[in-house]
Amino acid sequence: MKRKTILLSHGGGGKHTRQLIEEHFLPAFSNSMLEKLGDSAVFKINGKNIAFTTDTFVVKPLFFPGGDIGDLAVYGTVNDLAVMGARPLHLSTGFVIEEGLTFETLDRVITSMNEASKKAGINIVTGDTKVVERGGADGIFINTSGIGVIEDGLMSDEPISPGDRIILNGTLGDHGIAVLSARGELPLESNIVSDAAPLNKIIFPLLEKFPGKVRFMRDATRGGFATVLNEICEGENFGITVTQRDIPVREDVHAVCELLGFDPLYVANEGKVVIIIDGDVADDALEMLRSQPLGENSAIVGEITPDNPGRAILKTMIGGGRILDMMIGDQLPRIC
Amino acid sequence: MKRKTILLSHGGGGKHTRQLIEEHFLPAFSNSMLEKLGDSAVFKINGKNIAFTTDTFVVKPLFFPGGDIGDLAVYGTVNDLAVMGARPLHLSTGFVIEEGLTFETLDRVITSMNEASKKAGINIVTGDTKVVERGGADGIFINTSGIGVIEDGLMSDEPISPGDRIILNGTLGDHGIAVLSARGELPLESNIVSDAAPLNKIIFPLLEKFPGKVRFMRDATRGGFATVLNEICEGENFGITVTQRDIPVREDVHAVCELLGFDPLYVANEGKVVIIIDGDVADDALEMLRSQPLGENSAIVGEITPDNPGRAILKTMIGGGRILDMMIGDQLPRIC
Repeated sequence: MKRKTILLSHGGGGKHTRQLIEEHFLPAFSNSMLEKLGDSAVFKINGKNIAFTTDTFVVKPLFFPGGDIGDLAVYGTVNDLAVMGARPLHLSTGFVIEEGLTFETLDRVITSMNEASKKAGINIVTGDTKVVERGGADGIFINTSGIGVIEDGLMSDEPISPGDRIILNGTLGDHGIAVLSARGELPLESNIVSDAAPLNKIIFPLLEKFPGKVRFMRDATRGGFATVLNEICEGENFGITVTQRDIPVREDVHAVCELLGFDPLYVANEGKVVIIIDGDVADDALEMLRSQPLGENSAIVGEITPDNPGRAILKTMIGGGRILDMMIGDQLPRIC
Repeated sequence: MKRKTILLSHGGGGKHTRQLIEEHFLPAFSNSMLEKLGDSAVFKINGKNIAFTTDTFVVKPLFFPGGDIGDLAVYGTVNDLAVMGARPLHLSTGFVIEEGLTFETLDRVITSMNEASKKAGINIVTGDTKVVERGGADGIFINTSGIGVIEDGLMSDEPISPGDRIILNGTLGDHGIAVLSARGELPLESNIVSDAAPLNKIIFPLLEKFPGKVRFMRDATRGGFATVLNEICEGENFGITVTQRDIPVREDVHAVCELLGFDPLYVANEGKVVIIIDGDVADDALEMLRSQPLGENSAIVGEITPDNPGRAILKTMIGGGRILDMMIGDQLPRIC
């Protein structure tokens, strides 16, 4: 039966989001750039490859351990550029504010956006503000759009192929669980903080040291790591194998997920990038990433395989193999 | 007394919006591009001047005579680029959707965005969708951001100065009143429809025919025509005089405004541009504009004067002079 109305899961980043895009947006807006479904659109201006991306943030609550909607809005868009190999240049910001919001709250958010912009090395160069009546929106929603410039030669020209390895720059699930804790929904005390961070600060040193070796990157936000793996191999003639014991997850995040019935592989992150890299340099790249503040807990977590084309397989702790599907439903709404 | 909370008027485009920007956003995000407060930020990429702009649309209701939130979202951003002399190239779109919205409604909006994109000659190349729970937002909010390319020589390099004339490409207030009519708030039957339109289709023929002659353009959206005039002359050593009898306003719009206590000079438009042009070519430009579908009712409505520096003066029907201040408060919330 075809659904008649929008569900929360249509914004969750998993299967329903994909259906929404493929069945409603793509047929209408059909053009080759949009159809690539990358983290950014890429086009040439005066011979330079430009990346352009947009993201709206509706996280609830506005403030949570390790971050708030302001720095999330900056890092989210900076990261969507950076994973395309584009150096983030300028951001726009569009606010929807609910009437009655205090200036104190607004100023906290603005200050946080400013600090995040400095850390990421970008400027917010244009903006827009709309106000809706009480009850017409929930506090603040922030859209950021961003422009970046792609330098030739940094990313690999070769497609992903068997033998490539998969690197993660740290622990999974911290962001989602930190937001849950701010909602008072954790069954235990925790020190878990969001991993929100400007990934360009770790991505470009890597690309500069290993030019032409990184085949693909994507930040593991809504839908989590497992959904990214599916996006990578869907419809391709290669498969993916990742090894559970190698995937970094904090012990307390693991414990909370166990208690609440979540799988950390599907929980949203805001400072984690999945890197597909030439197998020949994977160990050296790992060492280099581990020497950086945003990559201390980096790990090689898997590889591209000729087997299981189109599928992502998790080698479990007990040695079995489990298919990692795209996220279905939306386990944690309004996480970014 | 300093206000502690956000009012609807902070999103109205008038004095409160200006205060919000000047007292909260600019101090935090201070950079030279943002401080220009243009309709778009302008910067160079590889030697080309690029314009970048953003706008969020929260119009209520979503559908109204002559348009809907979809085409509004496309034209609004296309127009913000075009008035900077930038040919609109690509748009991004970010949706916030309330859980429970019907796909029928969403598809109507998407179809409308697609048709508007074709009319404007742009592509929507990247997007994002968030869903919030019932009551967390009001139907759909749409952000569009846009990139355009500025060709050298089309806009004047000279600053606005006395002797320049002011052209409007048609009647004022149609959009605001059309939205009110869709809210069922009109005291009489009317055929008033929104003027929402892609202004690039009238702006570029004008710039190409009169290169270097247009000093400044701005679309008269929130805050209306009078607020644009104030933005033009504020702090400058010239003044503005406009003549009431020359300003095109539909009779029925005039009648509705009289009944409801609105001033059409402050009502939002979505297809009207204020053009400051070299006085020597103003008459020829007017003729050319009138020959275009989007400019049939164009008029020369005033001029830049050495008198009354920093002020916009309206010469009324009865021959008096009235200072046109920036809009205070927000007479028509959620109009775009």
